[in-house]
Amino acid sequence: MSKPVLHTVLSPKLLKLYDCNNAVVVIIDVFRATSTIATALFNGAKHIIPVDSVEKCIAIGTQTKGITAGERDGKVIEGLQYGNSPAEYPESFIKGKILVLTTTNGTKLLHMALNAGAEKVITGSFPNLSAVCDFLIAENKNVILGCSAWKDKFNLEDTLFAGAVVNKVKEHFTIHCDSSLMAEEMYNLHQHDLFSFIRGLTHWHRLEKFGLEKDLEYCVTTDVANILPLYKNGALVVG
Amino acid sequence: MSKPVLHTVLSPKLLKLYDCNNAVVVIIDVFRATSTIATALFNGAKHIIPVDSVEKCIAIGTQTKGITAGERDGKVIEGLQYGNSPAEYPESFIKGKILVLTTTNGTKLLHMALNAGAEKVITGSFPNLSAVCDFLIAENKNVILGCSAWKDKFNLEDTLFAGAVVNKVKEHFTIHCDSSLMAEEMYNLHQHDLFSFIRGLTHWHRLEKFGLEKDLEYCVTTDVANILPLYKNGALVVG
Repeated sequence: MSKPVLHTVLSPKLLKLYDCNNAVVVIIDVFRATSTIATALFNGAKHIIPVDSVEKCIAIGTQTKGITAGERDGKVIEGLQYGNSPAEYPESFIKGKILVLTTTNGTKLLHMALNAGAEKVITGSFPNLSAVCDFLIAENKNVILGCSAWKDKFNLEDTLFAGAVVNKVKEHFTIHCDSSLMAEEMYNLHQHDLFSFIRGLTHWHRLEKFGLEKDLEYCVTTDVANILPLYKNGALVVG
Repeated sequence: MSKPVLHTVLSPKLLKLYDCNNAVVVIIDVFRATSTIATALFNGAKHIIPVDSVEKCIAIGTQTKGITAGERDGKVIEGLQYGNSPAEYPESFIKGKILVLTTTNGTKLLHMALNAGAEKVITGSFPNLSAVCDFLIAENKNVILGCSAWKDKFNLEDTLFAGAVVNKVKEHFTIHCDSSLMAEEMYNLHQHDLFSFIRGLTHWHRLEKFGLEKDLEYCVTTDVANILPLYKNGALVVG
């Protein structure tokens, strides 16, 4: 029997070049949306509603009695309650609550994948790497690893996570894709020096000035919130 | 004095995210358009007219008494005279002649760069690596390394060439660009095993069945046609 096909998409701008129909799409936004999503669900959030605007975040927050959260340029957005840091969502705070999260890059890609006919959409980050890989192997369907990028520009942190997934699942898939090959090689090259390597990335420099070093190190730590966020009926729930 | 800025663009689909205004844009289409362009000019072609359709190729070929050339799927296109292989253009054949070349990916990107306000457009490939680097350093302007990709999908051969350029010119430029960082790391990783590494790329598998192994090896050989193709008044000439 032929194996399902896996591709890595390096920017939302390139998503249309790939066939999402009946595929599992993994939304990757390592710094920090999908790391925060995994962490909040792992710590007992009831579910997480990803939205693409502040207005929607406030409206849905009111309607669901959820916690509204989102950042722009490293600061909590005016009118919202919390930010986009995984450290803000320990079990003592988030357990049993609904989180309404607005992010720029990740939420956009998630809605694009749904519109493109994805059968299942999950979110991936280093904190839930194994859960993502286990799910992809068990589903045995075509896979798109979708990097959220930064305003559509290629970034390395999302690529490194895609490479980590390729490294762990490749024997179960047919992979003829230079993006996946590159992503895995970059991951292999840096899997043992991620903390120092991320200090050279453009996104690090963007966030470092807000004192987020510990956050970013957490975001490249494997399996510390090892749960599967699955998109269902408008929200991310434990899959 | 601040240094000019260098970016690597991994697909034509991403070009709009970058500022081409007043920049030097390097068109990269390693397999095989820009390798063929360097070779034909190095071997004495009068100039090369890149066109984006077969119809234009035939019309301009007739008008200029030039040689018409182009391939689709590894075969010379019906109605044209020659293909897209650097081996077809030795000095004994091409010296003093005009070449009208139609290619899919490279020509499209070249016209996009011109429309985006590029000040100078040149073409780059391993056979003319040093000439490209010398020009970029001497110009001292912002640089876009534009990978032609394959039908807008990321490819590694163009990325490796971008990485080779970054490796050689980086001290002259400000580079805060994950694409450039990745490209240079991939080049550093494979600069000594390019012949074997390219055998794993998707484009290799596409062209290998047409018996083009020698061609592809030539296309990753450094400085064997070390000349600068510069776009001027509708044609590529020695810059």
